[in-house]
This record gives sequence, C-alpha cells and structure tokens, in this order.
Amino acid sequence: MKIALLGIGTVGGGVRQIIDQALGMTGRLQISHILIRPEHDKTDPRMTDDYADILGDPEVEVVVEAIGGLEPAHTYVRQALESGRHVVSSNKKMLAAYYPELLAIARQKNVRLLYEGSCGGGIPWLAALARLKRIDHIQSFQGILNGTTNYILSNMTEKGRDFAEMLSQAQELGYAEADPTDDIDGLDVRSKVCLSAVQAFDAYLKPESIPAYGIRHVTAQDIAWAGAHGYTIKLVGSGYRTEQGICAQVMPMLVSDRNLLAHVGANLNAVSASSDTLGVSTYIGQGAGRNPTAHAVVQDILEIAEQPQLPMNEVQTAENDLSGVQGVYYLSGRPAETLRDLQNPDIPDALVTRKMPLAELLERLSKLDSQLPFVAQLEETDKG
Amino acid sequence: MKIALLGIGTVGGGVRQIIDQALGMTGRLQISHILIRPEHDKTDPRMTDDYADILGDPEVEVVVEAIGGLEPAHTYVRQALESGRHVVSSNKKMLAAYYPELLAIARQKNVRLLYEGSCGGGIPWLAALARLKRIDHIQSFQGILNGTTNYILSNMTEKGRDFAEMLSQAQELGYAEADPTDDIDGLDVRSKVCLSAVQAFDAYLKPESIPAYGIRHVTAQDIAWAGAHGYTIKLVGSGYRTEQGICAQVMPMLVSDRNLLAHVGANLNAVSASSDTLGVSTYIGQGAGRNPTAHAVVQDILEIAEQPQLPMNEVQTAENDLSGVQGVYYLSGRPAETLRDLQNPDIPDALVTRKMPLAELLERLSKLDSQLPFVAQLEETDKG
Repeated sequence: MKIALLGIGTVGGGVRQIIDQALGMTGRLQISHILIRPEHDKTDPRMTDDYADILGDPEVEVVVEAIGGLEPAHTYVRQALESGRHVVSSNKKMLAAYYPELLAIARQKNVRLLYEGSCGGGIPWLAALARLKRIDHIQSFQGILNGTTNYILSNMTEKGRDFAEMLSQAQELGYAEADPTDDIDGLDVRSKVCLSAVQAFDAYLKPESIPAYGIRHVTAQDIAWAGAHGYTIKLVGSGYRTEQGICAQVMPMLVSDRNLLAHVGANLNAVSASSDTLGVSTYIGQGAGRNPTAHAVVQDILEIAEQPQLPMNEVQTAENDLSGVQGVYYLSGRPAETLRDLQNPDIPDALVTRKMPLAELLERLSKLDSQLPFVAQLEETDKG
Repeated sequence: MKIALLGIGTVGGGVRQIIDQALGMTGRLQISHILIRPEHDKTDPRMTDDYADILGDPEVEVVVEAIGGLEPAHTYVRQALESGRHVVSSNKKMLAAYYPELLAIARQKNVRLLYEGSCGGGIPWLAALARLKRIDHIQSFQGILNGTTNYILSNMTEKGRDFAEMLSQAQELGYAEADPTDDIDGLDVRSKVCLSAVQAFDAYLKPESIPAYGIRHVTAQDIAWAGAHGYTIKLVGSGYRTEQGICAQVMPMLVSDRNLLAHVGANLNAVSASSDTLGVSTYIGQGAGRNPTAHAVVQDILEIAEQPQLPMNEVQTAENDLSGVQGVYYLSGRPAETLRDLQNPDIPDALVTRKMPLAELLERLSKLDSQLPFVAQLEETDKG
C-alpha cells in the first residue's frame, strides 16, 4: 500500500523510520512520496515540494499529515479526503477545529480518517474506546493527556519547587515548548478531550465550548495543601454522559492518593474509561514523543490496510452540558477572595466550594475582573 | 453469525446476556445452542445436553467454551476445531496445558482460537500485545494477573493483618474459592503467563517449566519490612526475552512505590509490556468476574466476525531460560535460615540475597528439605 507522508519533522521522521525498517506486518507498507517545503533540501529521492505530485498519483492510497498547525495541514487533509484517499493525522488542534467538515467528506468518499496519535501519543486510547464501543455504552472518561504539565506538576510535587522554575527546567529538557501556552493553559488537552468525546460518545463539542483551566497559576502552597490532605494535583481532561447530553472539561484536579492517576508521574499520560460491562479500564504510557506518536500513526495505517472499507461513524454536533455535572472546587490566589460566599463549611482551611454545578462556578469566574485564580476540582472520595 | 455456548455458568451466563441484549455491533451475533449437563433443567429453548447437536449443525460457526476445567472442555474444543469451527475460550488452565495441540488443529483447519478472557479478564491485554506486535518486538511483560491474591495482599498492606485472616475474608466475599490453591500458590498466574508469552513472543513454554511461587507463606512482618523500605508486595507474573531465548516466572515482588504496580489495589489486574518504539505501556482493569470476562469473550467473537480468515501465528515450543535472568531475592521464614550464605551485605536487616541467577536460586530452594520459605524478588530501582 503506497503512502504519502506530508512533513518529515519529529513525527514524520519516526513514521519513515518505522515503515522503512519494516517489521512484520508493516512490510506491506511503502512510503512513495514525502512532501517537504520548497526551501528544504531533497535528501530522500521520494521528496517533493509539490502536493499536486501526490494528489496526481493514483497509486497513493493513504496520506499521512505530519505537518502540524492549522494551515496548510487542514487544506491538504481536506484535499486528500476529497480525492478519495484515507488520511492519518496526529494533529489534534487541526482535527478538533475542523472535525465535522473532514468527517463529512470522509463519509461521503467512503474513506477513513484516523488519528490515534493525537490523544495520548502511543497509548492505544482511541482504539480502546472504539473496541469498548463495539459492546458497551461508554459512560465517562478522564485522564492525564498532557505530558508537559504532568512533568511540571510531578516535579513540583516531588521537589516542592515553584511552577516557574519547573517550567524553565521542562523547557531546557525539551519537554515544554518555547511558547508553552497551549500546554500549560489546558488548550492542548482541550483538543484531545474534544477528539476523545467524538470517539467515546459520537458527539462533537466545539473546542471553544469546552472550559479549559490550566496550571499557570498553581503554587507550591497549593501542592502542599493538596499533599497534606491526601491529594495530588494533576491536570485532568474528562467527558461524561449527563442526563441531558454530554459534558466535557479540562481542569486541574486534586486526585485522591487512592486513585491510580495520582501515581502517574514524570511525563506519562494515563486515561480511564468507564463502560457498562467492563467497568473502569485504564491505559497508561508515553503520551508524546517521536517514537510513540509515530507508532500510533503506523498503527492507524495498518488499521486502514486491514479494514479499508470500515465506515466512519456518524457524529452529532452537541452543546456542552455544563449544568449537567456538579463538583467541589478548590480556588486559590488573590482573585479567589471575592468567591468566599461559596465556601464549603466542612473544609475551612482553604477556599474550597460547596458542591455546585460546573456552570455556576464558570459564571462566577467569568465575572471576576482580574486575573483568574488557580481553579481545581476536588475529587470526592466518599463516592469511591 | 451463529454461536454455540458450552456451559451457562458465571461467564457463559454473562455472554448470553450481552449477546441477547445486543448493542451495536453485537447485533449480528446469535446464540443458537447452549450445552448444559443432562441433570440440569432446560430453561432456555436453545439448550441441549448433546454436543453432537452442535457439531452436527453446519450453521454454527463459533463454539464458546465456558465450562472450565480440563475435561471435557479440552475434548470439546478439540472437536470443535477439528470440525472447522472457530473457538473462543477463557479457560486458562486448559489452554495453557494443551496449546500446541489445539493451535496445530486451528492452523490446519484455518480457523481461529481466541482467549482474551483468559488473561486479565476484561483488560484488552492479549489484544494489546497482538497490536504491539504488528510493529514492535516485545521485549518483556510483567504484571498483576490474579485478583484474589491482589485483594489479599492489598488488605494485608492496608490493615496490617495476617494472611490467613485476609484469605478467609476473601473467601467470605466470594473473591477466593473454597480451595484457593491455584490462586495463592501462583498456578493461576502461571497459566496466564504461559498464554501471555505465546502472544508476546510466539513461544510456548510448558506451564510446568515456569517456576511459580505464591503468597501462602507471606506474613504481616514481610509486608511491614517491605513498607518500611519503600516497597509494596505484589504477586507478579513476567516474561522476558533473554540473550538465549525466553524466560518466564511467577513470583511475589517487592515493588518500589515509584512503580505504578505498587498502587494497583483491591482485586484489580495490571499488566505492562515493553516494546521497541512504544516503550512501556500499561493496561489496568477488572481482571475477573462475570461481566468483564464475558465482555472479553464477546470481543473475541466480534474479532472473528470481522476477520475470520486471519491465520493463527506459528508458535515454537521453547525451554524456559531460567539462567538468562538475574535478580535480588527476599526470603523469610524458618527454612530460609539455611540460605544465609546468599546474604546481600548491603541489606543486612533481612535475608535478601546478592544479585544472582534465577536458576541458582531455584536450585538452592529445591534442596531445602522442609516447607519453602516466602520467596520474593526485590525490584531494583537504581535501574529505573
């Protein structure tokens, strides 16, 4: 099966290496084209800087998008689907933004659009959800879907250091980008939650409708308070079926030490699904990086090689049912002071709210005229 | 697709319920026969006590063995394969004992023999290994594959109680059988390690060749020593590629608190694989029970429905390369006293051995003329 690879950066390079040094079933795959930018040297005879070369070759069956960013990745993927090619991408931001448009084309052309590498890197998370769904209704999912922030939080927890210092260290080690906004403000996880909800619930929530709180304002004092009360702070993305529909959110969580997620350290990812007959199943591994993400991309290509005719599920666009879930929330930092009326009387030594609908908390936060406080959900352990 | 169900106990009953109350893709499955014992009432019109009814119906494509035990399960499965039917079973003891014979028939008849429910219950563990193997060499696996012993050890750890008391409690709650030998002596895990090695390495090690040490002799003092040194005791089954071949073992392990396995409590199962491009990936969930095991059985049936022609891998029978791995071992109890010459000078406050080949330890243990001591491997954390 002939494959065109768009981009030969970290992930694209890994995909080329795995397929070229073919093991086992990958032996039937062949990269025939590699799209590069005009200004780059053609160091591989398969390289071209003209996308028309790829779209014009009728033998190319799969286009692997490994460019990143919104454009031209989005246009290239759309054109590939329109031309009747299967597409594999791990570009979570682009996929979350344009999913309904791209899915409609894939369904019309009867081709597959797969993106295992977009959520949880090498962890077979979307594959696990697809498998569960063959039998079960999925009730909810939640997990750690960003390695950069998990690395920062794990180090703050172990070493008692400040956020800024641990962010710098993550940047020096290459675990965080020069502009870390998408990671530390929860926007990267938001895209992954959007795509996980598509897979789990056949429902598309616009990324902008998913509230995203990150870890920019977390302090060593917050970590210490959590530790003293049997919690570890993790950045958690989640999705739930509610009575009315689907709710999804991204928010730091004070995770009980009895919850496995509390013990997922370093830059690992970990995600759990809860479903009818299987109960809770959890999947843990390298959430990013060259080899794990390339592995996931090649798994998608093999999936297409095995079952090219499998139709893409229909997906309904839905509102985010933010009034359908309740929580207890931990708030800290100066701006939180104006929210003292929400105080939970059972936990007097910090600003922890009474149990309240997420929608109500978000409304109160939206009215703050200053910088946001650090906001986190407190895991309620009496419910198991 | 018509399915014959052999046995309607816990797992068989769960399979009938999932398929009869068909959701999604299971809608194309139909149970046409249910084999029961002659002395049982025929409470379902599909019930028969004559296996010839099933073998004689050419429309039956899949036989699900849910009888348990070695016979007649083994004979029924062999006959089903010989008659050209696909077989699904979660009977780990029977499958581990007869795997080469059954595989040879399945390969000759070009049918599939699947057994996801045999290892890790509902956790898609064997499916994860099969998926990994499409791209990677699997280097090793290790995990908690028995819920009964994990329940006992977790409770001993949390409550500081004795083994005998926690075993009784597990029996009262239905987590342990009246005769708990297979669970607590590691024989159940041995069958699962055998079948996991088949899947991971395409190598069959006879179950009798896999050393199995259980938790029968563990004491509250052992748990306390482990806790004081940053370890949690878990019963771990594992398999490794060695320089010369494959090594597999079942042994309690003093797992570092930095290892996720240490935090897998209650009756959960958790297994990790280490492979070339993905690194370590971990799968956690309900390792047994009606619904999770039935879920795994139905997943296997769906797998057959989707890809009935997929050939079974060739598997080589191999010796267990017990001299290919080394470890540091914790020993306790009176019989351990005669092994004092193995003492690790770095850990003087317990009988912990120097680093030594597993084969050498086993030879020394085989020469003890009294009851075996409690034997556990100490996780070496300096290697990560």
